[in-house]
Amino acid sequence: MNPRPARGWREFRLLADIRRRWSRLGPGDRLGLGDDAAAYRPEPGQLELVTCDALGEGVHWDFAWCTPREVGRKAAAVNLSDLAAMGGSPRRAYVSLALPPRTRERAALDLLAGLTGELARHGARLAGGDTVASSGPWWVSVTLQGVVPAAQLLTRAGARVGDVVLVTGQLGGAAAGLALAARPRVRTRARGAVLRRLLAPEPRLAEARVLARSGRVHALLDVSDGLAGDLRRLCEASRVGARIHADRVPLAPATRRAAHALGQDPLALALSGGEDYELLFTASPAHAAALAADVLRRTGTPVSVLGEILPARRGLRLVHPDGREVSWPQGWEHGDSRRESPEQVKGEQVSRRVTAKP
Amino acid sequence: MNPRPARGWREFRLLADIRRRWSRLGPGDRLGLGDDAAAYRPEPGQLELVTCDALGEGVHWDFAWCTPREVGRKAAAVNLSDLAAMGGSPRRAYVSLALPPRTRERAALDLLAGLTGELARHGARLAGGDTVASSGPWWVSVTLQGVVPAAQLLTRAGARVGDVVLVTGQLGGAAAGLALAARPRVRTRARGAVLRRLLAPEPRLAEARVLARSGRVHALLDVSDGLAGDLRRLCEASRVGARIHADRVPLAPATRRAAHALGQDPLALALSGGEDYELLFTASPAHAAALAADVLRRTGTPVSVLGEILPARRGLRLVHPDGREVSWPQGWEHGDSRRESPEQVKGEQVSRRVTAKP
Repeated sequence: MNPRPARGWREFRLLADIRRRWSRLGPGDRLGLGDDAAAYRPEPGQLELVTCDALGEGVHWDFAWCTPREVGRKAAAVNLSDLAAMGGSPRRAYVSLALPPRTRERAALDLLAGLTGELARHGARLAGGDTVASSGPWWVSVTLQGVVPAAQLLTRAGARVGDVVLVTGQLGGAAAGLALAARPRVRTRARGAVLRRLLAPEPRLAEARVLARSGRVHALLDVSDGLAGDLRRLCEASRVGARIHADRVPLAPATRRAAHALGQDPLALALSGGEDYELLFTASPAHAAALAADVLRRTGTPVSVLGEILPARRGLRLVHPDGREVSWPQGWEHGDSRRESPEQVKGEQVSRRVTAKP
Repeated sequence: MNPRPARGWREFRLLADIRRRWSRLGPGDRLGLGDDAAAYRPEPGQLELVTCDALGEGVHWDFAWCTPREVGRKAAAVNLSDLAAMGGSPRRAYVSLALPPRTRERAALDLLAGLTGELARHGARLAGGDTVASSGPWWVSVTLQGVVPAAQLLTRAGARVGDVVLVTGQLGGAAAGLALAARPRVRTRARGAVLRRLLAPEPRLAEARVLARSGRVHALLDVSDGLAGDLRRLCEASRVGARIHADRVPLAPATRRAAHALGQDPLALALSGGEDYELLFTASPAHAAALAADVLRRTGTPVSVLGEILPARRGLRLVHPDGREVSWPQGWEHGDSRRESPEQVKGEQVSRRVTAKP
């Protein structure tokens, strides 16, 4: 009577399982999962924030080196990082999930468990979404809503000439992790540490709130596409230039070790590798040291001074450790799959990550 | 110096084009495209609504029978329909777009032009998103935000025993269109009309607002997965059963003609075919006729009475034209790709549509 194969997800059953686990309403919610849209009361005196970030199998991850649960966790984290970059507090997520027909329901639920677990760690919850068959690879897109008091909104625009450029944490680890993920035979004891940077980035929400409440930050964004690309975005939005000192770019010991094993320059990983999800921001020189100390004291996260904001006509400049100052290449574009040699993962060609906000 | 091929999209250029065209802020907007998240002031006295619907190449469309612009239009329309189903007014859309590396930038912009054009027709605009490389087919996911006065919120729950079941417009046209799209050699002069039903569904926002303001509607949703599946959802949410009279299901002449050319039963297309995006709702018998007349007078859209709400223990029942009353099959699941024979489009196997809200 029942011709269905034992393997492969079935829509109604999967949706019933999703509702059973994640239907609980939170503060302000009027409707969550299960109707044509979610409905909630907005919070008085707050701006609404919405961000949207997608990850695709074969582009952002490969199941050769990560699990569905890790994919879900990361899909939440990258969006949480975007809300952090506005100074916001996350509330509700909407998840669009495309699954090949043979996907096990267990795997889909694991992805959502990773996602909702990461949301819950930061006070947010699943409020809606769409689950669809894919004719190709897996796909997950998350739209995350949150709030911020209007006076604490952090934007990319607003950097001023003479400002100091700062960054939280350390850079290049995720890029080292991605390079090692693609080369499973490279042996280094840094593998675990840099893979964690790739798979479980820590959204800097607490750090961002300290910065937002200080009222001292002029411009801020999260470093998702590498320091060079994101600094350029900040400078374009603020209509300024900037100078970065290479020897001040914070690199973790594991990143240096992984880069050595890979035969790569760790600085290049930090400058052009993506997915570190640290906060890049500017403040006046009078306040920079106090801000950095405040973030460290309240969150345990170190903050480094990288350089300074210049007039727009100076463009982007990099000071090498030997003192040479160079202009960064015009038209430089991170992650363009047609400019870098594609890598092989498990016999399949994996496009380089090519992602950004419109 | 420049090794880039002439074909294929490039991230920075595409994003610059998107911002140039669609960055204008609307009422209440604080930030739109170009920062880590959009920011806006919520509207006093209104509930926020958020819905999310995705379409995939090879599942929901094939470029053999539609253009990027039509895909964009439809991606907007299906989400607008979900907001209509809450009684809401759409405001801002966030679009996640996955593009194979060889995609022409022109095609991506055409998709977004179709999408933003359809949004603009209904008072909404693009406010953010993400553009990413795909290692497989195209993918587009839209998250749409809107508002509704709390007292006018329409939900799936609330149908009462004795209510009349009504539907706007006509059913089965989109399913006939999909069947004809997959069989380009079938000749019928209904092809154009049913393809339009498939590609350019009309979100019933005006009709829904008439219904929401009346205060007379007990339960409502949009028919995205076929009458049978969506009636079941309404009944499950309301904990009731229902009886539908087959001879009252509204079928357009073009749908009958297309079904004839395909050798299919037009009623089956209406019951189990999806994507009609009409509104299915219930009201007490005392108000049903006046509601139907009101919608017709204010919007030009006819409304049909299909049947009545029964106690939950009666389940779903269908009265055939000859008077036979049958219980609809238990466990019936629309669009399960493993229960229907896959169709061939341009030599590629196209999974049947398998989509629903969690």
